[in-house]
Amino acid sequence: MFEKPPKNSREKTKNLLLELQDEICAGLENADGKGKFIEDSWERKEGGGGRSRVLKDGLIFEQAGVNFSEVHGKKLPPSIISQRPEAEGHEWFATGTSMVLHPKNPFIPTVHLNYRYFEAGPVWWFGGGADLTPFYPYLTDVRHFHKEHKNACEKVHKDIHKVFKPWCDEYFFLKHRNESRGIGGIFYDYQDGSDNIYKGNNKKGKASAASKKIDKINLNWNDLYSLAENCGKSFLPSYLPIIEKRVKIKFTKEEREFQLYRRGRYVEFNLVWDRGTIFGLQTNGRTESILMSLPPLSRWEYGYKAKQGSREELLTSIFTKPQDWLNDKKLEELCIKNQIFD
Amino acid sequence: MFEKPPKNSREKTKNLLLELQDEICAGLENADGKGKFIEDSWERKEGGGGRSRVLKDGLIFEQAGVNFSEVHGKKLPPSIISQRPEAEGHEWFATGTSMVLHPKNPFIPTVHLNYRYFEAGPVWWFGGGADLTPFYPYLTDVRHFHKEHKNACEKVHKDIHKVFKPWCDEYFFLKHRNESRGIGGIFYDYQDGSDNIYKGNNKKGKASAASKKIDKINLNWNDLYSLAENCGKSFLPSYLPIIEKRVKIKFTKEEREFQLYRRGRYVEFNLVWDRGTIFGLQTNGRTESILMSLPPLSRWEYGYKAKQGSREELLTSIFTKPQDWLNDKKLEELCIKNQIFD
Repeated sequence: MFEKPPKNSREKTKNLLLELQDEICAGLENADGKGKFIEDSWERKEGGGGRSRVLKDGLIFEQAGVNFSEVHGKKLPPSIISQRPEAEGHEWFATGTSMVLHPKNPFIPTVHLNYRYFEAGPVWWFGGGADLTPFYPYLTDVRHFHKEHKNACEKVHKDIHKVFKPWCDEYFFLKHRNESRGIGGIFYDYQDGSDNIYKGNNKKGKASAASKKIDKINLNWNDLYSLAENCGKSFLPSYLPIIEKRVKIKFTKEEREFQLYRRGRYVEFNLVWDRGTIFGLQTNGRTESILMSLPPLSRWEYGYKAKQGSREELLTSIFTKPQDWLNDKKLEELCIKNQIFD
Repeated sequence: MFEKPPKNSREKTKNLLLELQDEICAGLENADGKGKFIEDSWERKEGGGGRSRVLKDGLIFEQAGVNFSEVHGKKLPPSIISQRPEAEGHEWFATGTSMVLHPKNPFIPTVHLNYRYFEAGPVWWFGGGADLTPFYPYLTDVRHFHKEHKNACEKVHKDIHKVFKPWCDEYFFLKHRNESRGIGGIFYDYQDGSDNIYKGNNKKGKASAASKKIDKINLNWNDLYSLAENCGKSFLPSYLPIIEKRVKIKFTKEEREFQLYRRGRYVEFNLVWDRGTIFGLQTNGRTESILMSLPPLSRWEYGYKAKQGSREELLTSIFTKPQDWLNDKKLEELCIKNQIFD
């Protein structure tokens, strides 16, 4: 059976995610220095609504989108019932915050964040994560992003980063390109406080190879709430220093073109593989809010191959593969050797 | 039971589609005047291969892709078996030609064509079609494209255009936008010569609303071969006159921006809804050839709305809805009134 969530569980998570949206938007406006978020509030016919915020054409951000939604209804779609049969026949509640940033400068990575909470009858779960997609490779940036999220996870439990880091690698993967979307971060889903952490990244709930090595982890409702809080609040410190470090680098037309080309992969992932996006589009979600994740400009080029040894090639050969960014000494040497360490 | 195809059925359709690729590429190079197709021949590990041809950065075409493939294997994917159980346990054969053109000038429409043939044991079928996606509305161009395809269909049977035209409207539809991809054309699938034309556009094979009005149509293998031939060969005459008519119109930066924005919808359709694309990507197809359909440059803009009464708004309100382009007099009057007739 599922642990009973606290009485104010819906209000509490909703407020956390609203606060997170506010905090992130304020931090991003401040970093940008020019762009301002415009908010659209919307209501959902079947129940609930949201506030979508978009910053366009800033100094740093070509586009930044930060969504909040809180929706509820009486009937769940079959895809959810089949995974959580206990939810059948109950009214349901879902709240989430999601964000995608598309910076102008190709030396600043694109980044995504999403934290969400779900309830239906006795069933509840948390999900979420954040992942970074650089266009140009710098190991220190990648390590910084991972370190911040690792620390946030470890405040809740010493082992969960070892599960959520590989889960992120598995989820944000373009099978048709045999490439990761970027350098990962953390990802988790269906965290329902049952007697072992839900380890799988596929519909059947099979444990991923990496997480099989981990012993039982018990997280209760409060732990999972803290996890969302810690990880959500670690986003700005994980990302803003990267902006600061890279924003002054001048970029060429070719580097911009490469950024636009790689953004094409971002589109491919979101439209072909991202369960949230596909689910939203196929079930009458608010299309404009869902597709806020797509880049303002994107490019495809048949048969493109980066020059051997170029930074573009190093990005593809090293930074679109799952790696042990924090500990792999050979990787560190390789990056130093290729001048993509710092 | 299925009619037995002629002994040389595979060779015959393959040659037709190869010839079609050659003819179309020659016609397009000639129209472009500068761009040349570059060919990649590729082999498929499991059997067969193809030739992908791409023309980049021509005078007319920003990108033009024309693929041919002929593949075979021993084991069919479950998605096909579930629709055609008679195919189970048989080796299979599939051949097809597909094309997507992305012109530079926003006054020239994007266009797509695909004809294909499939065999496995006693089962065989033809499928295909062509559809036009204008960025700026001109009723005469749309009528010309439809008229040519209607004539090609009617050479085989007087009624089939009445089935394949609405089928196209149903297939090339973005449900998440409640918009057609463009102004349609023709589309058909699973044409297996059985005692009535296969009318459905969904997995269950339910007849579409429009085609319910049509009486029985019997097409045998030779009819369906002729259909692919007629329609395939009607492509150049259906499209080249539109280029000629529009190529000299000067376009502004804003018109180019609108084209890039609408190309975003093309990406959305292909990656979210197009069965062929999704199937290819999820089953280890040749990714670069499959995604040749994506535009070289594409744009998204949160919350974009065209000015009321502008040609951009007329495109969205009239030219992304299924219409009876050839016969609707009110539509004609509306286009004349809004100066988007010719």
